[in-house]
Amino acid sequence: MDKLVIKDRLCKLRTEMKAAGIDCYLIPTSDFHDSEYVSSFFMVRNYFSGFSGSAGTLVVTGEDAALFTDGRYFIQAEQELMGTGIRLMKMGEPDVPTLKQYLEQQLGQEECLGFDGRVVRADDAAQYEEIVQKKQGHMCWERDLAEKIWLDRPALVHHPVFRLADCYSGEGADSKIARLRERMKSEDADVHILTSLDDIAWLLNIRGNDVESCPVVLAFCIITMEQVLLFADVREQSPWNRENRRYLQEMGVTLLFYEDFYGQIAGYHGKRILLCRARISCRLGKELPEDAQIIDRPNPTSLMKAVKNRTEMENLRIAHLKDGIAVTRFMYWLKQNVGKISMTEISAAEYLEKLRRKAEDFIEPSFETICAYGANGAIIHYSASEESCEEIKPEGLLMVDSGGHYLQGTTDVTRTFVTGPLSDEMKKHFTLVLRAMLNLRATSFLYGCRGVNLDIRAREVLWEQGFDYKHGTGHGVGYLLNVHEGPNSFRWKLMPDYEDNAVLEEGMVTTDEPGIYIEGSHGIRIENELLCRKGIKNDYGQFMYFEDLTCVPIDLDGVDASLLGETDRKRLNAYHQEVFERLAPYFQGDELIWLRHATREI
Amino acid sequence: MDKLVIKDRLCKLRTEMKAAGIDCYLIPTSDFHDSEYVSSFFMVRNYFSGFSGSAGTLVVTGEDAALFTDGRYFIQAEQELMGTGIRLMKMGEPDVPTLKQYLEQQLGQEECLGFDGRVVRADDAAQYEEIVQKKQGHMCWERDLAEKIWLDRPALVHHPVFRLADCYSGEGADSKIARLRERMKSEDADVHILTSLDDIAWLLNIRGNDVESCPVVLAFCIITMEQVLLFADVREQSPWNRENRRYLQEMGVTLLFYEDFYGQIAGYHGKRILLCRARISCRLGKELPEDAQIIDRPNPTSLMKAVKNRTEMENLRIAHLKDGIAVTRFMYWLKQNVGKISMTEISAAEYLEKLRRKAEDFIEPSFETICAYGANGAIIHYSASEESCEEIKPEGLLMVDSGGHYLQGTTDVTRTFVTGPLSDEMKKHFTLVLRAMLNLRATSFLYGCRGVNLDIRAREVLWEQGFDYKHGTGHGVGYLLNVHEGPNSFRWKLMPDYEDNAVLEEGMVTTDEPGIYIEGSHGIRIENELLCRKGIKNDYGQFMYFEDLTCVPIDLDGVDASLLGETDRKRLNAYHQEVFERLAPYFQGDELIWLRHATREI
Repeated sequence: MDKLVIKDRLCKLRTEMKAAGIDCYLIPTSDFHDSEYVSSFFMVRNYFSGFSGSAGTLVVTGEDAALFTDGRYFIQAEQELMGTGIRLMKMGEPDVPTLKQYLEQQLGQEECLGFDGRVVRADDAAQYEEIVQKKQGHMCWERDLAEKIWLDRPALVHHPVFRLADCYSGEGADSKIARLRERMKSEDADVHILTSLDDIAWLLNIRGNDVESCPVVLAFCIITMEQVLLFADVREQSPWNRENRRYLQEMGVTLLFYEDFYGQIAGYHGKRILLCRARISCRLGKELPEDAQIIDRPNPTSLMKAVKNRTEMENLRIAHLKDGIAVTRFMYWLKQNVGKISMTEISAAEYLEKLRRKAEDFIEPSFETICAYGANGAIIHYSASEESCEEIKPEGLLMVDSGGHYLQGTTDVTRTFVTGPLSDEMKKHFTLVLRAMLNLRATSFLYGCRGVNLDIRAREVLWEQGFDYKHGTGHGVGYLLNVHEGPNSFRWKLMPDYEDNAVLEEGMVTTDEPGIYIEGSHGIRIENELLCRKGIKNDYGQFMYFEDLTCVPIDLDGVDASLLGETDRKRLNAYHQEVFERLAPYFQGDELIWLRHATREI
Repeated sequence: MDKLVIKDRLCKLRTEMKAAGIDCYLIPTSDFHDSEYVSSFFMVRNYFSGFSGSAGTLVVTGEDAALFTDGRYFIQAEQELMGTGIRLMKMGEPDVPTLKQYLEQQLGQEECLGFDGRVVRADDAAQYEEIVQKKQGHMCWERDLAEKIWLDRPALVHHPVFRLADCYSGEGADSKIARLRERMKSEDADVHILTSLDDIAWLLNIRGNDVESCPVVLAFCIITMEQVLLFADVREQSPWNRENRRYLQEMGVTLLFYEDFYGQIAGYHGKRILLCRARISCRLGKELPEDAQIIDRPNPTSLMKAVKNRTEMENLRIAHLKDGIAVTRFMYWLKQNVGKISMTEISAAEYLEKLRRKAEDFIEPSFETICAYGANGAIIHYSASEESCEEIKPEGLLMVDSGGHYLQGTTDVTRTFVTGPLSDEMKKHFTLVLRAMLNLRATSFLYGCRGVNLDIRAREVLWEQGFDYKHGTGHGVGYLLNVHEGPNSFRWKLMPDYEDNAVLEEGMVTTDEPGIYIEGSHGIRIENELLCRKGIKNDYGQFMYFEDLTCVPIDLDGVDASLLGETDRKRLNAYHQEVFERLAPYFQGDELIWLRHATREI
């Protein structure tokens, strides 16, 4: 992106701000549904800053512009913001103000803070409002200033919808709706408003393609004891074919226009409305009738969805086997061909996708593949572009973080592959990351533990040596839904706003992905997905353990065996034995011989 | 305690309840200052239930009586409540309601919940009030029903006060008050109300003896920008001698009558009052002027006090050396004499106290010594009585958890001693507990970690084998103040109300005390105190580590070396080498020979 283009766009934005009487304009990364990944219509922050990461907030004043993002994106943001005049605010670093502290500093007395209230969360907006009130200023949430500036903005599109059969979901939508109504009853709620796309898709067993890599359907949903209202695209050329419409009808779901959602909300006078303030938009919050009683709780579907049922668990094992076959074939191809044929980060990623597409019931990649060679591996969420794309050479490390959506579930796996000679330091780092991953996955713990308790099991291995990684150790994973899903995660910092620190329940799926990133040199991340299971129960309580879902060899060429303890070695060998046993039936000839070697005991 | 006596007291209480129109009466364990340990005047729950543990809440209705206590006291409470008709509610166990859930069940429509509002925390009372309102009932917090029943109740006494010199405190009270006022300014507060006794003692560098084992002064304190008001005993025969009064005067502290505190509070109309709702009493909350603005924050002194300064750190090392000498001499005496001379749990504890008293600047034990032989060791907070007191035999295990107050600080140490042959199981348990203790203490971590992140470092060793202990792994320790002190601790469950999950700062002292308790057989706990220190700082952040304060050998007769990993062995040997080097100059002859053997490399 040309830096002058960005400067020009900011200039136009400031003109619009002036015209609207806005002194400080805030652009988060979200859609009307608090989605993490958004469709191109919503990429306003990217448009005005040039920063293409998946998370960040741009704040523009008359004089200043600042972009707040987290540790995953520091290096990338530095590169992309260079020359734009936009300052990078590295969230969580010492001496860097939080977004709220920054707003307090920037906003003058009686000034106006503006943003598009449809893409800012109600609880964030409430905090901004406090700041504004302290300054006797005001807040303008009704306007989207991009409208007049971004003339070639992509349209808001609705894609075809399909129904997820019970053999995949393991539970009919009628049963899910009934369970949700039970929860509503126990909260004494008349109405439940659900705006998060993955919750809606899960509840109704429907899937779509309205956000890249997230098979969700752009919709709002309202559940009462009598009705389920779904606000979606119901025009002539609608993505809802007759069969789907009949399915919804049978389920007692009424299909309404997407745009009519706010009007419906305004009518719930005097009702007890269950919703999650942390997930609804500022605009929705403002449209609620004043006399409604709000019961502010995490969406009940969030926990229900995270706890995979028996069918989903069994399907996930199948999905990971298919995915493991594809990634292992990729590993074989890579190790055989690197240095012999030409390959780049992009062509390698394409080859991997081609292998995945061969699997039955594969739908699409579950996120944009990170295929990062050498120094690019240190950019935690690196995205190769035609310009920056590196040739993969027969030396050093290639990190590949990728995943797929299958009818049997969603996968997310990272392997760092050795493409040729490594320095001792690289081997040391590889071995440390491996030990960290193995250590967390081997944890036996009492029921009641949360990610915040367990995170150190991975990190302790690195901390002992003075290393760390500036991202969570793991995140929940949806079932043919968002690859990042709450309310479970592995994270050590307490973030009360994040809703990702739930007690780990049997059936929850969480990734285990520690890393070491050396700027300008290399990056290593190794990621398995872990399924939480019940272990023994005794007087002390219910013990829990993790089952590996991911089924891909770990590149032994990166391991310095002298740095493994006896326990590490046993864990690694046991994992590789299991990988071999599961994969072997699908490999033959040279590939099978290679697989046996790749999963050998060390 | 005769069970009939308890039944009779409950009967009288029910008569009083009836007369006062109270349907459900709640008796917590506290004083007017939210203290953990209380002077005998406040032992109302003990009086009515016979349960003598340090934590528990009794709830009495017309028909029912229930005592809520935590895992430390399950076995003891079961024994002490037997035959009283009082049901034991094991807090945190599955299917046991929380106190609030229980109140919801017990309270009928329009019924009255009563308690002494001076000994119930304001935030708890607010939650009770919600429950009462749901039932259209009311709350009576103005009466202490024990008054008319407990006729021989001990008086509320004020003991002599002394000033802690700057060479012990490391910071003058004037400087502490100035720091506190800075915090008040940053919170825009006019008035700060401080009712917790250890905070007051720390702030003014005064100590007393008004709660057993806690060298605090019974007082309330109010700080404004101009004044410091201390409400304490100022009668003729006051504990404040002329010198102390002059000290306070010089510090600008005005001494007022203890009883006049509430009257003063009521006068702060329209003021911005900084206080900690979780620490003030219901009565204080009710007496605040309605037009005052409350700034509800943890007491700033709580964090300031927990972060020991350079002088305090250096003094603590001295206190622990003196304490280590006494406990190690006790260990020598025990191992030499068990089976040869008669010794009981009580006589052994007395001997240990005698050894501690020999140290210069020793003041008193920092809590009642737990000296528990054999099966008594499984009672986590066992207290030997003349009746239950066990003879110590030359077999099995003796657990001794004890500590002292010195001018140089407060100690808390647990060692489990082997007095003769052990079963393999006992050795296994001993070795597991030792490994757990060593593992946590060896943790290297990034600044920002809280106890909730680190707790698993101890517990993982036991969880792996299906064991656990039903208490926190560790608590903060005061400086010549409460042996249990916030806001730091090691605990895995998130307890938002506890205020003991602060970020670990350099200078904080926390105990590391895992255990295994086998009911009817034995109990093992090993406890070191850890001082949090800054380690290396690099691009990842500030790394932290723990320094051992405790300086007492760990009984190698309990260790099964075959169950130690190489890392465990190194840690143990390094600790013992340090213990030997620090203690050796104070030991001679046979004792020194024994010490060398007791700290030998294994």
